[in-house]
This record gives sequence, C-alpha cells and structure tokens, in this order.
Amino acid sequence: MTSPAAALDHVRDRVDRALREFARRQRAVLLAEGDDLLPAAGAIEGLLAGGKRLRPAFCYWGWRGAGGPDGQEIINAAAALELLHAGALVHDDLMDASDTRRGMPSVHRQFEARHAGGGWLGSPAGFGMGAAILVGDLLLCWTDEMFHASGLPAAALGRGRPVLDRMRTEVFTGQYLDLLGSVAGDETVASALRVVELKTAKYTIERPLHLGAALAGAGAGPDAAASGLTAAYTGYGLPLGVAFQLRDDILGVFGDPAQTGKPAGDDVREGKRTVLLAIARDRATAGQAKVIDRYLGDPLLDEAGTAEIRAAITGTGAVAECERMIGRHVTTAVAALAGAPMTGEARQALAELAVAATARDG
Amino acid sequence: MTSPAAALDHVRDRVDRALREFARRQRAVLLAEGDDLLPAAGAIEGLLAGGKRLRPAFCYWGWRGAGGPDGQEIINAAAALELLHAGALVHDDLMDASDTRRGMPSVHRQFEARHAGGGWLGSPAGFGMGAAILVGDLLLCWTDEMFHASGLPAAALGRGRPVLDRMRTEVFTGQYLDLLGSVAGDETVASALRVVELKTAKYTIERPLHLGAALAGAGAGPDAAASGLTAAYTGYGLPLGVAFQLRDDILGVFGDPAQTGKPAGDDVREGKRTVLLAIARDRATAGQAKVIDRYLGDPLLDEAGTAEIRAAITGTGAVAECERMIGRHVTTAVAALAGAPMTGEARQALAELAVAATARDG
Repeated sequence: MTSPAAALDHVRDRVDRALREFARRQRAVLLAEGDDLLPAAGAIEGLLAGGKRLRPAFCYWGWRGAGGPDGQEIINAAAALELLHAGALVHDDLMDASDTRRGMPSVHRQFEARHAGGGWLGSPAGFGMGAAILVGDLLLCWTDEMFHASGLPAAALGRGRPVLDRMRTEVFTGQYLDLLGSVAGDETVASALRVVELKTAKYTIERPLHLGAALAGAGAGPDAAASGLTAAYTGYGLPLGVAFQLRDDILGVFGDPAQTGKPAGDDVREGKRTVLLAIARDRATAGQAKVIDRYLGDPLLDEAGTAEIRAAITGTGAVAECERMIGRHVTTAVAALAGAPMTGEARQALAELAVAATARDG
Repeated sequence: MTSPAAALDHVRDRVDRALREFARRQRAVLLAEGDDLLPAAGAIEGLLAGGKRLRPAFCYWGWRGAGGPDGQEIINAAAALELLHAGALVHDDLMDASDTRRGMPSVHRQFEARHAGGGWLGSPAGFGMGAAILVGDLLLCWTDEMFHASGLPAAALGRGRPVLDRMRTEVFTGQYLDLLGSVAGDETVASALRVVELKTAKYTIERPLHLGAALAGAGAGPDAAASGLTAAYTGYGLPLGVAFQLRDDILGVFGDPAQTGKPAGDDVREGKRTVLLAIARDRATAGQAKVIDRYLGDPLLDEAGTAEIRAAITGTGAVAECERMIGRHVTTAVAALAGAPMTGEARQALAELAVAATARDG
C-alpha cells in the first residue's frame, strides 16, 4: 500500500461493483411491476453510485484483522452497510429539508421536481416526502437482503446478525436524540458529542469493525484474544469516529462544494448543531456570537454571509481547537491497535484508514 | 375449533405475548441511551398492542399446512411480520396525514403534541414527521432482528429469507404505485385493483403463507407436492386478499369507529382511492357523482356529509357489488385449497381464516 488512501481504495472499487450488481438485480425486480418504478430505480442507483464506502471498509478490515480471508463474500456483506447508510441519508435529508446529496438533488427534491413537471394533483412536497420515505424504506430493507445473500456461511451470518441489529437501533436512536436536542435548543458541547458517539463513532467505525470481527468468529465465544480484539476495535473506533465527525463539521462550514457534494456553508444554512459550532459558541465574544446567531439556520445565506460567519467561527479559535482534537483522537485511535491480537496487514490498513477518513481533503 | 375466528385466536394470543416480550427487551436497549427514548418506546408498545395479527396467522398456518410442527419458534418468526406492518403503518399514516391508528393518535400526531406541549423550537409538524420516520425505521429494522432471533434453525431462515425480501419490496412498490396513482388522478377500477394486489393480497396473505411454507421446507426444492402447495397458497391468497381489501373499503366508509379504531367515514375524509369508490364512480348518476366529488377528500367532513355520501355510494349499487365480489372471491379462495397437498387441520384453519378476515363485523 503506497498511500494513506490505499486501504480505502482497495475495498471501495470492489464494494462499488457489488452494489452495482445488487442494484441491477433489484432494478429488474422493481420493473417487473411496470415502468412506473423507473424513477425510483434511477434515484437509488444514483445514490448508490457515490460515497466513500467507509463503513464497508471498516467492516472488511475488521474481518481481516480477526483473521478472515479475503473474498467476495465479505465484500458483499460489508457492502450491505452502504444500503443501510443510503436509506438513512434519504430519510435524514427529508427531515433536514436538505436540497442536495452527493452532488445531486436529494431524493425528496427529485420527486418534488417530477411532480411539479408532471402537473400532477396535490402538493409536490407531499409527493416528494412520500416517495423519499418509500425509497428509504426499500433501501433499509435491502440491507438485510444483501447481507444474508452475501454468500457467507449461515453460522457466520448468525454471529454477525446481533451486531448489525444493535448498530441499527443505535443509529436511529442517535438520530432521534439529535432531533430532540435541536428542538430543545440544547447547544452544549457535551450534548453534541453524545450524538456524535451514537450517530457517527459507533455507527460509522466501531460497529462495522465489530461486525467484521463477529462474522470472522472473533468475540463470539469465550476466547480471550478475540474479546481483546473487540476491545481494541472500540478503543480505535470511538475516538476515530469523533475525529471523523469533527472533520465533517469543518468541511460542512469551510469545505469546497466540488469536494463535499454540498453547497458552500450548507451546515450553516441548515442550522446543524455540530461540535464545531458548539465550541465556537462557547468561546465567542459578544460580537462573534451575534454574527453566528444571525446566519445560523438562514436558508437564504449567500456568499458574503458565508464569508462573514466563517471569519467569526475561525476568530473564536474553534477551528484550531477542532484540528487539535482531530490530531489527538487519531493518535489515540491508532495507539489502541498497537498491542491488539490482529494481523499486521490489518493494523497497517486501519492506521491508513484513520488518516484517510480524517484528512483535510475529505 | 368452534368458531370461524378460532383459527385466528389460536395464533393471536401467542403472537401478542411474543411481541410484548420483544418490545420489553427493546425498551431496555432504547432506555440504555437515556430516558429521552421513553416516548419512542411507549409509542412502539402502544402500536404493537393492537392489530388482528392476520399476517402472523397466515404465516403460521402456511407453516402448519406444509407439515411444520407447532412451537414457539414459528410464532416468533411469524410475529416479526407485525413489526414490518407496524413500521409501514407509521410511515403510511405520515404520508396520508392520518390522525388516528388503532384508536390512538397516529405516531406523528403523538410527537407533534409532545412538541407543542413542550414549547420547543421549530415546528411541531416537523418534529412529528422526524420522529415518525425514525420510529418507523426502527420497526422495519426490528423485523429482521426478531425473525433471525426466532429460534428457527439457520437452514429454515435461509429458505424463508428470499420470501421475506420479496414481500417487502412488493409492499413498498405497491405503496409507491398507490402514491403515484393518487397524484396522477388515476381512478379506474383496474388501477385500484393493481394496488390491492401488491399492497394487500400479496403482502397480507399470499407472501405470509409462502413464508411459512418456505420456513417449513416446502417449495424450496424440485418437490412436486411442495410446489403444488405454494401454488395452492397463491390460488387462495390472491382472491382472499382482494376480498379482505373490499371489506376494508366498505368499513372505511360505513364502519363503526368503535370497531375500526378510525373516525366514521375516515377513508372519505382522506380521499382514499379504493376499489369501492372506483366502482361507485363508474356507476354513479350525475347527481351521485356530484355528492361523491363534493365530500371525497374533504378534511372537514361532518356527520351530515358522511350520511349523504354513504347514501350516494349505496345508491350506485357499489356496496352490493362489493359484497358479491367478496362472496365470490372467498369461495374461489377456499376452493383452491381443496386438492392441495396439505394437512387437514391447516385446510380447516385457512377456511376459517378466510371467513374471519372478511366478516362484516371486521
């Protein structure tokens, strides 16, 4: 592996292919009901074409670290996590009223446009909402379909199943807590970090690693080395997850649209309650706080406003603090792997993934 | 079995217990994240307390008909279908803006009220929508959790899995076609029947029967008797599903709220495109059509309006026609079981279920 991103690339291309193949088969199932399902199939394929495949990468290397052999079966099982993620994103975009995802209109906006263009009855927003709920539901259900059709032995799937179950309950629980925090006006750093742990650290990194380990047979029995591995994955996954989210927070305010697939300053426009913004509020002078409050959640935020709130946030020192936290958390994460009972190749790959997942260029 | 409903009662009480036990375990998982999840756990338990358990009953008798033995494991696997159904209902009520479900406020309305009562930030409707999406997502995902933790052998679950997969794709596809038909103003009887086949006949009856048969080992191999059973279940399930939906159509307009758990004339208020209404439109005189058009989809429909549209619909002869169709379809359904390679007990139970599922007293 020659670059920090190689561990990610290695899995990504194979996951891409597995998802294309799965989507191709599902398209045939959908179109068996008639051409009316074409837009739904198209929206799903568009959504599945993008993404960094982080969760499959962690699942794959969790498996390899536990001694599982390379093979198409683990790629298929790991790729199933992208279906869960895509479904969650479709519903999340609907709840956040987000306009774009991965450089394309969000699913509910695609169907709103279709309704408006067709001159149909009722409201475009209602149709967009209904279609996005159903497309998300399909994707969530397809997670299990792809997972169980991965080709892994039934005993392996039986070991992995409870981890997948827990992971899904955690992510929707985290989303509910996030929603609750936003309406309760809870803007503390502690509250933002609690949501990050459930919605990102466990869901994106720790549980995919645990899933890979469980599929490979680690942590299923009273094997001390195996449970040492599970603990090491937690020691790596939780801090790395926080670092990953902090990078995402920074990109959400300062990122380049060409890189993020979202308009500049989109997190500001949506009024997202991120750790970065919680820290900025904590440290803001009265003047800085006034600027932040003026633009946060403003759907009409323009280029000048974006520049102004960026300057205010940077002025509080919150960005520098987040960068320090990222560095510290990545170091802690990689250190947790040092004495873990795992293959050297996987330890190296996970160290590379830690850097790739939190790099400034996203 | 002494009454036509005995075949349903036999399974219902045991499914109720299995769902209560599952919900109790999930409550502990949710509350491990803090008391904030109490309202979500409560909404889920309230929803799971109701329902006729039709899908589990058909799954159970599909298993028994294929020679599967009675046992807690098949009850658990069959009960998982109620989680899928509950999740679909939560999302469906949100899409239809329904106020009630099973005699209680719908989930999105429960959370709207919580928001309004708490004096929280943002809109109650937005919070209600977000919470209902997430509660529905949890329920959909828990389907697989309960199914795979049913205690059935891995080989049986592996045989059932593709049937469950197909059933879910079909139900969400059917809902999308229904949504599309409603905005396209497609009010033909043929279009309404197409949606009924996907959303009700396959989902409520045929696929649960097939799932039970596949779990028991029928239809999995090139066994002529087994595939004869699958075909018989289709011959029974599709017409019975249409009959069941027609009964539901009639109850949706003429039903007693104490029995349906919905306000009187709720289908009229929501402007539901049912087969009953499609037939009524087809047969209506100009005067009857005017009355139907005046009240259909009127959110403020009152008692007098309900009485007026009921009289108009009855006057077209649509109700009598639906009753004739119900009788004919139930007869066809039961006849399809006559020569099927199944146990006598299951044949008797399915004949009773056909009557119970389409009875006038719901």
